[in-house]
Amino acid sequence: VRRLDPLPSALPPVELRARLPAGFVAGATAVGIKASGRPDLGVLASTGGPAAVAGTFTTNRVPAAPVRLTREHLAASGGYASAVLSTSGCANAATGAAGDEDQAALAVALSERVGVAPELTLAISTGLIGSRLPVDRIRSGLADLVPAGLAATDQAFAALGEQMRTTDSRAKAASVEVRLPGSAGGDVPILVSGIAKGVGMIHPRMATMLALVVTDATVTPAALAALLGPVVERTWNQLTVDGDTSTNDTVLVLASGAAGGPEVRDGTEAFATLAAAVEAVARSLARQQAADGEGATTLITCQASGTRTDAEARAVARSVIASSLLKAAIHGRDPNWGRIVAAAGNAMLDGRPVDLEPDRLAVAIAGVPVFDGAPLAFDRAAVSRLMDNAEVLLRIDLGLGTGTGEAFGCDLTEAYVIENSAYST
Amino acid sequence: VRRLDPLPSALPPVELRARLPAGFVAGATAVGIKASGRPDLGVLASTGGPAAVAGTFTTNRVPAAPVRLTREHLAASGGYASAVLSTSGCANAATGAAGDEDQAALAVALSERVGVAPELTLAISTGLIGSRLPVDRIRSGLADLVPAGLAATDQAFAALGEQMRTTDSRAKAASVEVRLPGSAGGDVPILVSGIAKGVGMIHPRMATMLALVVTDATVTPAALAALLGPVVERTWNQLTVDGDTSTNDTVLVLASGAAGGPEVRDGTEAFATLAAAVEAVARSLARQQAADGEGATTLITCQASGTRTDAEARAVARSVIASSLLKAAIHGRDPNWGRIVAAAGNAMLDGRPVDLEPDRLAVAIAGVPVFDGAPLAFDRAAVSRLMDNAEVLLRIDLGLGTGTGEAFGCDLTEAYVIENSAYST
Repeated sequence: VRRLDPLPSALPPVELRARLPAGFVAGATAVGIKASGRPDLGVLASTGGPAAVAGTFTTNRVPAAPVRLTREHLAASGGYASAVLSTSGCANAATGAAGDEDQAALAVALSERVGVAPELTLAISTGLIGSRLPVDRIRSGLADLVPAGLAATDQAFAALGEQMRTTDSRAKAASVEVRLPGSAGGDVPILVSGIAKGVGMIHPRMATMLALVVTDATVTPAALAALLGPVVERTWNQLTVDGDTSTNDTVLVLASGAAGGPEVRDGTEAFATLAAAVEAVARSLARQQAADGEGATTLITCQASGTRTDAEARAVARSVIASSLLKAAIHGRDPNWGRIVAAAGNAMLDGRPVDLEPDRLAVAIAGVPVFDGAPLAFDRAAVSRLMDNAEVLLRIDLGLGTGTGEAFGCDLTEAYVIENSAYST
Repeated sequence: VRRLDPLPSALPPVELRARLPAGFVAGATAVGIKASGRPDLGVLASTGGPAAVAGTFTTNRVPAAPVRLTREHLAASGGYASAVLSTSGCANAATGAAGDEDQAALAVALSERVGVAPELTLAISTGLIGSRLPVDRIRSGLADLVPAGLAATDQAFAALGEQMRTTDSRAKAASVEVRLPGSAGGDVPILVSGIAKGVGMIHPRMATMLALVVTDATVTPAALAALLGPVVERTWNQLTVDGDTSTNDTVLVLASGAAGGPEVRDGTEAFATLAAAVEAVARSLARQQAADGEGATTLITCQASGTRTDAEARAVARSVIASSLLKAAIHGRDPNWGRIVAAAGNAMLDGRPVDLEPDRLAVAIAGVPVFDGAPLAFDRAAVSRLMDNAEVLLRIDLGLGTGTGEAFGCDLTEAYVIENSAYST
């Protein structure tokens, strides 16, 4: 019987709070987009000239107006931006040409407050699909917020994270400090810090919900983009709450260069260090998003090994945590391993089933082996007690190769249904 | 504003009850697989020599022992069978080599009772994954049931349908009577009748849960298989309850030839008539399965049009009815069309997104247009009242071509979660 220990990790340790790297200011306020009166307008701005930017976006064929605007502006600027407009409570999605005009007008308003060309501003938004942004109220809010309401403090960055919340029960934040090697003047300490929102309409397809990751490292847009792709593959693309891919998913990484030091180039040791720091932040944020999934009581991590490739392991792990039946079983603290096996057997990669031989398959729930080619005897009540936890680890080994991968999700509860049966009305 | 009427159908009318075609006997009994003591062992047998058979099976990579046995036996016999063993309460899936031996032993036992080679018997099973079949008790049950407990009556066929139930709240059955044209002696009246089970772990991938369709038409295995593929594409492959593909999915169509008349050949008018009859039965059974989805209160039908191909329309319709958020909104009678648009925007076909232009998209809920390139004004309360029904029709038009397709699902309710948080323990 295989033991199936947790997979080892080479990522640096993460601090679960927002810290604002040098070269940025942030702030948030309330302008009445949210009926609750909570903060719903936020801005992140760079202070020493445009920051280098890389982004990943929803693959939904009905992308929201802010997603379209951000893609266009990044293409026009060659991957630089001076400010990001964040609105919450309204997705500005499926709003037709009028929605695009609203978003463009707000880009002009923000660019005038910051003193840059509109193409150097980006936008993210989250909330109800199909409703229009209150442009005039947001414009007034921007006049108050920029620059008087922006500050170069951790608190200001945390406030921006709070502003992004919709159905999130809490804000998500993660920070990593590392030293980038390779400079003639010695190692350069840098900070990578991220905030994120998103607890529903979450499913891995290029990005998931909203995340802003900022760093004071010195790096080009091209190197940032090279770094972000694989990170997103292993983190946000491995996160699912309910199988729905939103219209507004956006991940942006902004680098100010304020930490100094030589430019981080692809293929160097400094690049690998920076990539690990960004991945640590991304992984932590994805796990915080999964743990706070709508109605969730438990974070489910599935780690797969023994596949022919890492991509296959990620597909198997994702298939397991995306299973509604498995999610419901975890909610009931039911060690129903049959649903894990069935979900693994459904894993698809690039439109084809992942290779799996039932005889070589092994499964452990919360550290207890339950299947190894055939069912194992185990103490159901004891495993059920081990599952009564804030996090449940599912381990699965396919016995076919050396690939590994993980995915993050949450249990399916009555509260998810209740929350989502009465949202717009 | 496009009106979006329901799609027309050319299928013959369906009677919602089990009728046993000539050339078959059926029966069921209880042997204690189900803890409830309800019928859990059933047999369908042909009386005039082996029937022609076509089948489709789960694409899950952990197929259950009865699925493997049935595929092997059909390959060995060239598409003929004299009897089908049906067990319920135990899936005999993920049971390793022992599970295969159990299933083979039962094939021998059934073949001895029927008086044919074991290869002329097939098997279907449904229930808990990972538990073993009680072989001795099933063998004793078969001694009582075959042939003394088998009858050539509609009641016996209905009893077989009852036996297949697990979490189904009711049995599913559908029958169609048509006349096959083309015989020198005039049209030949035939009967196509089906029974099915399946209300959870349902998602379209080659077949869904268990269905037996029987007919007295005269047709070869090859023609039956040619007929079954497109039918399953348009019916059971368009059914989803919870996004999980089971280890045991099996659809079998058996033709006794007892109605007489010339052999139905591919490409003839008689073939088209028989195919339409089988499709009418399959579509009805799929809709009955969706309506009885675990915890469901409402059958959701999504009909898509205006795609470049029919396959694209089916993919869009399937993406909409598979959305947990949309399913929860329907449960709350919430005309939240944003979730329909977002789900349509996520439609994938063969690993690629389906072409969709938001400006050309139109959506209607329960007959009321709510989106046509941009949001439409509508009476939310009135639409909510129209949704308070046993069936809700969602219509979506992509405005890009002449493709059409439909898909069947159900709402997501607290009861689904409750039912599935405590199943095995």
